[in-house]
Amino acid sequence: MPTESGSHDPERLIRISWHDNAAAWTDAVRQRRIESRVLATDQAVLLAVRECGAGHVLDIGCGEGWLCRSLAESGIGVVGLDGTPELIARAQAAAGADYHLLTYEEFAADPARVGKDFGAAVCNFSLLGRDIALVLMAAASSLRPGGVLILQTVHPFGDTGPGFRYEDGWRTEDFSALGSEFRTPMPWYFRTVGSWIAEVIAAGFELRECRESLHPETGRPLSLLLIGRKCPAP
Amino acid sequence: MPTESGSHDPERLIRISWHDNAAAWTDAVRQRRIESRVLATDQAVLLAVRECGAGHVLDIGCGEGWLCRSLAESGIGVVGLDGTPELIARAQAAAGADYHLLTYEEFAADPARVGKDFGAAVCNFSLLGRDIALVLMAAASSLRPGGVLILQTVHPFGDTGPGFRYEDGWRTEDFSALGSEFRTPMPWYFRTVGSWIAEVIAAGFELRECRESLHPETGRPLSLLLIGRKCPAP
Repeated sequence: MPTESGSHDPERLIRISWHDNAAAWTDAVRQRRIESRVLATDQAVLLAVRECGAGHVLDIGCGEGWLCRSLAESGIGVVGLDGTPELIARAQAAAGADYHLLTYEEFAADPARVGKDFGAAVCNFSLLGRDIALVLMAAASSLRPGGVLILQTVHPFGDTGPGFRYEDGWRTEDFSALGSEFRTPMPWYFRTVGSWIAEVIAAGFELRECRESLHPETGRPLSLLLIGRKCPAP
Repeated sequence: MPTESGSHDPERLIRISWHDNAAAWTDAVRQRRIESRVLATDQAVLLAVRECGAGHVLDIGCGEGWLCRSLAESGIGVVGLDGTPELIARAQAAAGADYHLLTYEEFAADPARVGKDFGAAVCNFSLLGRDIALVLMAAASSLRPGGVLILQTVHPFGDTGPGFRYEDGWRTEDFSALGSEFRTPMPWYFRTVGSWIAEVIAAGFELRECRESLHPETGRPLSLLLIGRKCPAP
């Protein structure tokens, strides 16, 4: 497990991992090799965005751009941002949205640089670090009054194998389920359901819904999808 | 699994079970033989009520009165209601609060009969049926503006043994962990986390917090505790 200083700073290792794995990740997404996405979670996020009726959507951590392209096909105007140059370049090459190369820190420092008055801000499996308060607050500030946050993440009870402990903390994804092309494991910060909800509320959202995508055969939960509505300014 | 008509109406079987098990249940609570309560969930609900600062609390489904008595010892004024005569009689004999023999249907039909302007309404493992919308709406109407609902329930991921499916539906509690004095099994309606949250929001609450009590040794989640704030009238 990475520590929080020096070369093992997990937030830095997350960035390195995306850099190293950008090509393999892009192939995995575009070849539809991520089972949970194909089975349930792609449809879950698309449905949530469509239901909220937003015509102008911000995709925070858009990666190679799958969600942006899918929403654009529905006639929704999309802005995508991501901090990994290798992914944003691939997103731009495939078009579909207005893409920005921005780290979450850069976005949080000046949310308006990607636009404002969005009807929805989406984080689709893209909040992997521990300190997500600033990026969620930036999401809130980028929304119009009444706009919604749609946050989908790995379900905290999706994988409860031996040694599983239900508590916030760093875990490691080795991408072994996706093939040998992935070069660099990635730290990611596990949160309980209550911890996810606390982050959303603390950032200025009223929680409106908690959806859980299930594996259609095993019934195992695959994703947690939270929908928060931007609270009126106090 | 009970069906929903005739003698197998699960809501009716719940009432019969409490009637039959009233003495055994009272002993189990008062002798502190329910492990999850002793380990974590009693303290979780007491802490939540104390933190909200309410001086006037409604305990919905108070049973033999443990929570009412515990809050009264802290100087909180408590009203308890329960639909099982055998439990309310035991609660009244042990004193500590103003107790009302009322089914949830009777409470929902006229919430003001137990008082109004409560600072908190508590449902502590007391929502066992499928149709809980009316009792939660009655809880909302019994609260003062800004009052809170504190709802504690069995954690949906507390027991994920063989055959576990993560979906709403009737289950059966046979009380076997509590000894042979329990005469009648009880149907109870399992809900997912998302389903619990949806019920709270639909009843007129803004979800403010989702707490999860864990077993101190195994880390297994024991309870889900939702805190909702009464929404202002539209």
